[in-house]
Amino acid sequence: MTKSENKKLWGGRFSEASSGITERISESISYESRLYKQDIKGSMTHARMLKKIGILTQGELDDIIKGLSQIQLEIESGDFQFRVSLEDIHMNIESALTDRIGEAGKKLHTARSRNDQIALDLRLYLREESGITKSMLTELVLLIAEIASKHTDIVMPGYTHLQIAQPVRFSHHILVYAWQLLRDIERLSGVIKACNIMPLGVGSLSGVNYKNDRQFLKDELGFEKITENSMDTVSNRDFVLDFLYFASVLGMHFSRLCEELVLWSTSEFNFIKLADKVTTGSSIMPQKRNPDVAELIRGKTGRLYGNLFSLLTSLKGLPLTYNRDLQEDKEPLFDSIDTVKLSIEGIHEMLSSMKINRERMTAQIYSNFSTATDLADYLVKKGVPFRESHEIIGSVVQYCEKDNADFFKLPLEKLKEFSDKFSEDIIEILNPEKSTERKESEGGTSTGEVVKQIDSIKKLIKEL
Amino acid sequence: MTKSENKKLWGGRFSEASSGITERISESISYESRLYKQDIKGSMTHARMLKKIGILTQGELDDIIKGLSQIQLEIESGDFQFRVSLEDIHMNIESALTDRIGEAGKKLHTARSRNDQIALDLRLYLREESGITKSMLTELVLLIAEIASKHTDIVMPGYTHLQIAQPVRFSHHILVYAWQLLRDIERLSGVIKACNIMPLGVGSLSGVNYKNDRQFLKDELGFEKITENSMDTVSNRDFVLDFLYFASVLGMHFSRLCEELVLWSTSEFNFIKLADKVTTGSSIMPQKRNPDVAELIRGKTGRLYGNLFSLLTSLKGLPLTYNRDLQEDKEPLFDSIDTVKLSIEGIHEMLSSMKINRERMTAQIYSNFSTATDLADYLVKKGVPFRESHEIIGSVVQYCEKDNADFFKLPLEKLKEFSDKFSEDIIEILNPEKSTERKESEGGTSTGEVVKQIDSIKKLIKEL
Amino acid sequence: MTKSENKKLWGGRFSEASSGITERISESISYESRLYKQDIKGSMTHARMLKKIGILTQGELDDIIKGLSQIQLEIESGDFQFRVSLEDIHMNIESALTDRIGEAGKKLHTARSRNDQIALDLRLYLREESGITKSMLTELVLLIAEIASKHTDIVMPGYTHLQIAQPVRFSHHILVYAWQLLRDIERLSGVIKACNIMPLGVGSLSGVNYKNDRQFLKDELGFEKITENSMDTVSNRDFVLDFLYFASVLGMHFSRLCEELVLWSTSEFNFIKLADKVTTGSSIMPQKRNPDVAELIRGKTGRLYGNLFSLLTSLKGLPLTYNRDLQEDKEPLFDSIDTVKLSIEGIHEMLSSMKINRERMTAQIYSNFSTATDLADYLVKKGVPFRESHEIIGSVVQYCEKDNADFFKLPLEKLKEFSDKFSEDIIEILNPEKSTERKESEGGTSTGEVVKQIDSIKKLIKEL
Amino acid sequence: MTKSENKKLWGGRFSEASSGITERISESISYESRLYKQDIKGSMTHARMLKKIGILTQGELDDIIKGLSQIQLEIESGDFQFRVSLEDIHMNIESALTDRIGEAGKKLHTARSRNDQIALDLRLYLREESGITKSMLTELVLLIAEIASKHTDIVMPGYTHLQIAQPVRFSHHILVYAWQLLRDIERLSGVIKACNIMPLGVGSLSGVNYKNDRQFLKDELGFEKITENSMDTVSNRDFVLDFLYFASVLGMHFSRLCEELVLWSTSEFNFIKLADKVTTGSSIMPQKRNPDVAELIRGKTGRLYGNLFSLLTSLKGLPLTYNRDLQEDKEPLFDSIDTVKLSIEGIHEMLSSMKINRERMTAQIYSNFSTATDLADYLVKKGVPFRESHEIIGSVVQYCEKDNADFFKLPLEKLKEFSDKFSEDIIEILNPEKSTERKESEGGTSTGEVVKQIDSIKKLIKEL
Repeated sequence: MTKSENKKLWGGRFSEASSGITERISESISYESRLYKQDIKGSMTHARMLKKIGILTQGELDDIIKGLSQIQLEIESGDFQFRVSLEDIHMNIESALTDRIGEAGKKLHTARSRNDQIALDLRLYLREESGITKSMLTELVLLIAEIASKHTDIVMPGYTHLQIAQPVRFSHHILVYAWQLLRDIERLSGVIKACNIMPLGVGSLSGVNYKNDRQFLKDELGFEKITENSMDTVSNRDFVLDFLYFASVLGMHFSRLCEELVLWSTSEFNFIKLADKVTTGSSIMPQKRNPDVAELIRGKTGRLYGNLFSLLTSLKGLPLTYNRDLQEDKEPLFDSIDTVKLSIEGIHEMLSSMKINRERMTAQIYSNFSTATDLADYLVKKGVPFRESHEIIGSVVQYCEKDNADFFKLPLEKLKEFSDKFSEDIIEILNPEKSTERKESEGGTSTGEVVKQIDSIKKLIKEL
Repeated sequence: MTKSENKKLWGGRFSEASSGITERISESISYESRLYKQDIKGSMTHARMLKKIGILTQGELDDIIKGLSQIQLEIESGDFQFRVSLEDIHMNIESALTDRIGEAGKKLHTARSRNDQIALDLRLYLREESGITKSMLTELVLLIAEIASKHTDIVMPGYTHLQIAQPVRFSHHILVYAWQLLRDIERLSGVIKACNIMPLGVGSLSGVNYKNDRQFLKDELGFEKITENSMDTVSNRDFVLDFLYFASVLGMHFSRLCEELVLWSTSEFNFIKLADKVTTGSSIMPQKRNPDVAELIRGKTGRLYGNLFSLLTSLKGLPLTYNRDLQEDKEPLFDSIDTVKLSIEGIHEMLSSMKINRERMTAQIYSNFSTATDLADYLVKKGVPFRESHEIIGSVVQYCEKDNADFFKLPLEKLKEFSDKFSEDIIEILNPEKSTERKESEGGTSTGEVVKQIDSIKKLIKEL
Repeated sequence: MTKSENKKLWGGRFSEASSGITERISESISYESRLYKQDIKGSMTHARMLKKIGILTQGELDDIIKGLSQIQLEIESGDFQFRVSLEDIHMNIESALTDRIGEAGKKLHTARSRNDQIALDLRLYLREESGITKSMLTELVLLIAEIASKHTDIVMPGYTHLQIAQPVRFSHHILVYAWQLLRDIERLSGVIKACNIMPLGVGSLSGVNYKNDRQFLKDELGFEKITENSMDTVSNRDFVLDFLYFASVLGMHFSRLCEELVLWSTSEFNFIKLADKVTTGSSIMPQKRNPDVAELIRGKTGRLYGNLFSLLTSLKGLPLTYNRDLQEDKEPLFDSIDTVKLSIEGIHEMLSSMKINRERMTAQIYSNFSTATDLADYLVKKGVPFRESHEIIGSVVQYCEKDNADFFKLPLEKLKEFSDKFSEDIIEILNPEKSTERKESEGGTSTGEVVKQIDSIKKLIKEL
Repeated sequence: MTKSENKKLWGGRFSEASSGITERISESISYESRLYKQDIKGSMTHARMLKKIGILTQGELDDIIKGLSQIQLEIESGDFQFRVSLEDIHMNIESALTDRIGEAGKKLHTARSRNDQIALDLRLYLREESGITKSMLTELVLLIAEIASKHTDIVMPGYTHLQIAQPVRFSHHILVYAWQLLRDIERLSGVIKACNIMPLGVGSLSGVNYKNDRQFLKDELGFEKITENSMDTVSNRDFVLDFLYFASVLGMHFSRLCEELVLWSTSEFNFIKLADKVTTGSSIMPQKRNPDVAELIRGKTGRLYGNLFSLLTSLKGLPLTYNRDLQEDKEPLFDSIDTVKLSIEGIHEMLSSMKINRERMTAQIYSNFSTATDLADYLVKKGVPFRESHEIIGSVVQYCEKDNADFFKLPLEKLKEFSDKFSEDIIEILNPEKSTERKESEGGTSTGEVVKQIDSIKKLIKEL
């Protein structure tokens, strides 16, 4: 047991020890230790700056760098003992440093406070994690583009209101998720930008009593700018919210994709078969192949929303500047980061290993009059105003339903009973497989447009 | 390494091992192990039932009970190794049991499934934790009643819009929090009632192929009724939501109390002094005594709301019956349980150790014309319609502000300039300390009414 | 234009008129006018009480009652002009009263404030609306019970993870929603109970300077008790939250039901046909029959959750007692009340008019090895431990999949290759229609148990 | 009553009229009519495009433009009758058009659907409202900068944990809100960018059967790009979420500012006096000046959060593409837009008219040892390691508290008892007014740094 272990760094004027509940409710080290790398990096850079402005000697700086390096090694090898009694990551590391190197360690906290220190650690950490997440999302977009590329020829029912509406290409459908992710990546780029402002060196709230060199800190730590108002610096958690929001929208997108994977895996839809490795069985029903990964990711949307709402609530109505309520920013953030990464991995694994049931998809486009709109447009092209044409085809549909007639095989004579504009070429129009190729409008489901889309996505990814 | 360790209990027909991501995303044992006691108790009772209906022999039952008891001991002594590869608490325990006692262990899962098993574990666990929480809240109500009892004589400013409105008793003010908690306790009683319905023995969804004895299970496990629809049983998480909602409202109440403790601890209000043991210092400002415990509890409102919203989201739009999304019920629940208990402890510690600054409270009632309403009512009693009287006093106030006159010492002559209804007895009316005693309406702030309130609260607590 | 129209009732000391933005942001009359009946009822009762304690004469009381009755008639005939400049419902009515009856009107506000007045109006209003909602829910439960009664003979696939798991009765499935609603009704009864405490007569915050008779008010207005702490009375909105929570859980339940109605209406499931009157068409696709009502109700879950979190947020961190933030309680409440009633109507209309596709349901139970569990249990009854039996059937399933064999028609010889315990009686066991009748465990899907369930639900409804 | 009034545009095949509840739950015109301008503009442009690709004749186009212009005039003069039976804005306008111009009107819906039409209307509307909001925010930032400019000389207590921590400039404090708003403006710019992608011409989901000219539409309507996937186009509401999130964070910022305005207006803080025009009185307490506008804006944070969570919930788990649940996007959006604009106005009015109580602010900096950190830093500069220095000053503070000594007037001899490093120059250091000028670190509270900040903000605004 080291000498400083149970000594609070702020205990000078306190006559009464913290009560058990205070320690338990105040400690953050149990979840905050993951910031050790950023904290140490920040402290090393701060020490270099203190040396530069004459507060530390070269020897002191060397001691600090050496001490901190040693602590980092211990942490990474699992030999470091984090102590709840030392509250947070900063005190755990500083206290260990002082134990190791003595006086110089006590000087390290000059010209900074825990308020700017945690702001730095969080920004460094979130910037790094956002970068990793961005790479993972980029790969996922490319996977989707690749799946689309390989299957441009598959036609499936397109749905609105979960009713079969018009035939679409499977590739076109799956690419929707790429576009969603591209927007998510853009939001994430915004998070990285928001992180990229250097907070260290503003002290507790008002600045510090030293001509410190914050530009040096900024350059050394690779930030784009420095924060320009010390009070804002220690009370601002917008960048954390930005990530929690990004994660919520991503979770919403994933919940939609997973909903579809679950649907498509049912006996009734039967459009895909998820690989064994991403499904699980039942402890009681020997035949089950449950899409648990898809369900879990869909379910995790809840925690992503919950985390956003949690921090929004904690921040509501807080006066300036730092309030301890802000400590509640970390657990939701860490949980959302972990959840997002886990979810991306899960989606990647499912999509890359699923089998597409082309036969079933094709069979289903011959359902629910999927080319009725084509028929209506046919009449329009023959001069019938759209609204009238819409009504005529409505009657055709009604007739088929009543007489159990096969819409896709209606003879010309029958059609002529509804409008004399119908002629031989109507057979082409009724065919759902051919319908998709007529959707040549930009962004439509024709092969040409889908291929353009894939190229466009690949280009956007390259430009990131 | 035991033989069953890496064997999924449902692996019979799976040709491909679960992928790493599936295992990581599916596992719940990392947070679910806290249900071990309930799981074992449920299994023991289930085994007794199986013996009763002839599925297990006495010997098999004995083995199971012994095996499970041994596992419980191992868990409690820290010797039990939970395995992520075994996914959840049920499989960890069942697998360990089979390793120990062989064939009989394999029979235990007859006539139940993990779907009803987890419903049982959760209900047992939540019922117990709710009971504990209820006791803690009851004690807190009594503490508040006691603090009120001890200080019925202190008068302080009463606020609306955070503006001093009328003088009130400190005891009257603090008792608001007792009434809030009494409502919270009522909500919690509802949770306990909702938990008190026995789910075991309905199988995965449709019932089981055995004439099992669910009434026996109910009696043995101390439930009030049994669930009456098997499909509802495995898809229902209302009782979890009920707790998360209770916790959210409690958190809201605590956030209001903590807001006041923070306000009252400022140099500006200076109404109370929180004990050293529930405040903390600053790493940079040697003079600080920060009300961190109050701030943290206020901040934790966020996670309580977030947890409720998390589960509401996960449940939205799920078709029947069990879906794996339901696994997302546990972490928010456990977090809210822990947070609630921690918060109650923190509030208890703060209230029981705070010092009340009676002098400052009394001084402040001579602010902001706190008896203006009394004056208005005085005129009403002399026959002036209330709305007119309200306007007259408004003019008096305006005069004092403009001429910097002391409202509480206005001479009768001056008052008469505003209304000739004023006479000598007005001095009594102006006095803010006496004002409170005139609030004799039921539930008002007069001493008599406050004492009645305290009695009423104590009675309500006794009747719980 | 009446004389008091533009005069604020609190304007006595204000030297500057409210700015436009203040009026626009402060006014609540645009949504609050729906409280007119409660406000007038409260004022009449308050006047009677003032007469009883000697503040009003009989003549004044008569004038007030007559004036208020007349105002109520005008409002109900659409002749009353609500004015934004008079801010809220209380001032609109009081000001109109004074215009009509003069002096007596000015006395009405004696011994009360807007803070207790709005608490009264809200409690009266919510109590009434909750009662109406409860009746509507009760009818819906009875409708579901009736639908179940009429179709006890239909068997359909039961799902877990949206995978066909075991055959169940359609009646059993649909009854899940009755049980959910019964819990919702219980929550709603809690709301009514929470409303049933009389707040009037506590003044702004501290009580009033009169020996008023709150028991009289309670009795006249039909409440169960009176509030016992004046400060709590004006700052408490728990009863509003309780309704918003009830509405959120109801919305969640409805979202699950609607999700199923949408699923079942797809070409792929094709289990039901919603009536034309609850579906809509497409402006572009002539064949579409979209389940819009189900989708809209599912979508409205969002606003119900949003309303709950809106008020939880507004209340977070508010110091005692009344703060103007509390005005934000009404719009979410009114919106949730309206949404709940609209949704119940919509669900009622859909369920009462939908057609069940019995043939398709029955066909689907011969999918996905729906009786695999029955087979496993069969072996257990022949002495095979459950876990072994589970593995054996897993292999049977795997064999069928690989060899494209029809599970439901497997010959005995083939089965014997997997276990020699199989014998002739296995044919019965494989049959999915017969499977449901074996689920005789209490709450199971056998006809007997379903009939018991329906009786139980009807009994519970009667006891409400 | 016009001929098309009660005819649904999709009614061709429907044999049963919509039931009352369907109409009530489906209609959106009651809140959607505010989109009329965008809808008409979109239709005019679409008509021009149809003419360009040969579907409309010049005469038809002229009729359409004339008809739509006339409808717009009628709407703006209040003569247009919106009909609930026509459901939405599109059908109300299209139906009126057909009534007026006959056949040509029926052709207008060619090559588009309501799914892309509403996407267009929403994007146009939100882009415009975001632009207005951005201007309003910009003005608010400039107002804050101006207030800061005018009062750079006022020193006030700076708070952490609502405890006086160190003296700061009032200008520095208020500028925090400018920095928050600058980040809000950046988020809003992201919303505008997200809106700026043209959706029209993709049809219901798959594209249209025409070689339409979406680039023409884009150019005419002033968009930056066109959407590239038709299915994504009709199912995407990310841009709405982005606004709701922006509004939530803005609401959070405003809640913090309003919390401070409320606090500062108390008798206890007494730092500012809000103008009469933004405060209101009490119906019962004649002396009250309540900061209602600040409270209401703080309270409205709830609805802003609620609206975000409302739509996040509605979108969760929706399969592609358009589902009617998406209709639930508009009310939260419109409410957040209105709330944001109202709140900005309210804040602007409060800040521009408030009086700052300089004397009280200055008096309070002589509280709670506000220069303790300066003293600690003083010792550090004399060579004491920071942690030791921190402890020494802690003891000084403790001594003052115990002996009731005035910290700011401690004689040198006394100080020397704690450390012999203290010398004459300590008097300067103890002075809280001088303390701020020593905070010369970038972003600190010294006058020089504050002036730099103001310049920087003005520059940023200019670059917007």
